[in-house]
Amino acid sequence: MKSEFEFIKYIKKSYGLNAVGDDCAILPKDDKTDMVVTADMLVEDVDFRLEWTTPEFLGHKALAVSLSDIAAMGAVPKWAMLTLAVPKSLWQTDFVKHFFDGWTSLANRYRIELVGGDISSSPDKFVIDSIACGEVEKGNATLRSGAKVGDAICVSGSLGGAAAGLKILERNGGGESGYSGFIGRQLQPNPRVELGRFLNVNRVANSMIDISDGLSSDLHHICEASGVGAEIESNLIPIDEGIVREFGIESQSLALNGGEDFELLFTVAEEKISMVADHDVTRIGTITKHSEIIELIDGDARMKLDASGYRHF
Amino acid sequence: MKSEFEFIKYIKKSYGLNAVGDDCAILPKDDKTDMVVTADMLVEDVDFRLEWTTPEFLGHKALAVSLSDIAAMGAVPKWAMLTLAVPKSLWQTDFVKHFFDGWTSLANRYRIELVGGDISSSPDKFVIDSIACGEVEKGNATLRSGAKVGDAICVSGSLGGAAAGLKILERNGGGESGYSGFIGRQLQPNPRVELGRFLNVNRVANSMIDISDGLSSDLHHICEASGVGAEIESNLIPIDEGIVREFGIESQSLALNGGEDFELLFTVAEEKISMVADHDVTRIGTITKHSEIIELIDGDARMKLDASGYRHF
Repeated sequence: MKSEFEFIKYIKKSYGLNAVGDDCAILPKDDKTDMVVTADMLVEDVDFRLEWTTPEFLGHKALAVSLSDIAAMGAVPKWAMLTLAVPKSLWQTDFVKHFFDGWTSLANRYRIELVGGDISSSPDKFVIDSIACGEVEKGNATLRSGAKVGDAICVSGSLGGAAAGLKILERNGGGESGYSGFIGRQLQPNPRVELGRFLNVNRVANSMIDISDGLSSDLHHICEASGVGAEIESNLIPIDEGIVREFGIESQSLALNGGEDFELLFTVAEEKISMVADHDVTRIGTITKHSEIIELIDGDARMKLDASGYRHF
Repeated sequence: MKSEFEFIKYIKKSYGLNAVGDDCAILPKDDKTDMVVTADMLVEDVDFRLEWTTPEFLGHKALAVSLSDIAAMGAVPKWAMLTLAVPKSLWQTDFVKHFFDGWTSLANRYRIELVGGDISSSPDKFVIDSIACGEVEKGNATLRSGAKVGDAICVSGSLGGAAAGLKILERNGGGESGYSGFIGRQLQPNPRVELGRFLNVNRVANSMIDISDGLSSDLHHICEASGVGAEIESNLIPIDEGIVREFGIESQSLALNGGEDFELLFTVAEEKISMVADHDVTRIGTITKHSEIIELIDGDARMKLDASGYRHF
């Protein structure tokens, strides 16, 4: 068995799964509306460590990762379900209550209703499955597959912060001062719900994905789905100065492959690029016709950029 | 922290969660249709043991438990998502492929489309979250809360088989011959989708739940939601003869508290009881006005029946 991406391709092909393959599945709701649904599993000691976070941050993040998927479709989040497998030792504390406090605090910001879920015991690890549903005008969800040759490639916010935060946590358990911003990006990411919706409603983005696996992997997903290639300029990638100061030459790799920034990566027709001028958005490159080939331009040098983001397998 | 049921009541009250509390959440779809959605988590060494089952059976059961929830609302299953946390050692085998084969085989029977999900790695245990969605005529889902004083209490099929199968597996790992039927009920349950729909469409059932936790617990759920009580007759409870032969006096407890039979427990107005005559359904008692008190009648004796079904905590 290969990576999870290859396996998903395999079952998609084997069983004719047409709805699988974007940040969310799209399902018809009524004459005017489509639903988008997504599920994300977070596993203790794979996706998080209890000693590095708080229950409130973890509840926030569980919902945030799903809202980021809904944002990437340009949809409005509506309701959610939450499924937990809880070790008995954790159940005996207030952990789950505080986890729900964190979850609810973010949910309230977007008026998301918790409609159901499940609570099971777990032999050892805390496991979360976060399910969320959004709505978008019928036929109008923003897909990975809509990128066109000549589109500008844009990214919101800055990249590498979540991976930098993880590095710092790995190094010293978060005790060091001065890097709380990066640790915050790792532990309490903010989904770009309003931006995703703006890009959708105003038909700005031709294609979109959220950066969960890492820029290199997620740009590959867009190129593969759209049958196009891309070139991005190294010096245009928005990396926090603080990361460069702390991690030096490693910064570029954190920004390209680190993942979990939960920013939006999208493509825009050249004539519409001015529409994002007032938003926290950076143009980093251009869509090319070279199917599934991504080139990183660094001064006079060009190198092929592989998908090197996070893989479970 | 108390049981998962008490915790769910707590968050339902704390956060004003109106959709929580039945087998599925009910959500508006269009002018004529409601959606029902459910999520069920299955955790290795809590809900199943890999050495006692096959990947195909486990894939089947993961979907079956969710379809049983949809059946209990009287809805037609439509689509599903599947989220897996897979230990790396298991990923390197064909396990997940065979798991999907079992899942798909049941899904095809009901033309259910797999629309999405997630695959994560897991440090040690295999964890499954099964999400399913069904549809029912607007305002017409069958609820736990509809039981009326005087209703006949009915159950489909027979009870105790899944728990008997688990006992046999615990005893000898399933190697014993002659009890394959019970082991089959434990490992490969059949959700009562057609019956649930029949009871709904023909407005036979006033209230309904599936027997996942155990008859005693699930009947308590109906009584609590409906503000009624119940009396059931011990000698009317449909227990397989084979269970009585094998487990003697323990049989009644297996049928009352064993759980995982995934039969339907429902209540019917006296004048409609003839409508279920041709179905595999047994009347076991009557709804009373004694709020949340369930009495078990055994000859001349009456005893109060507590909710003693499965609890995680």
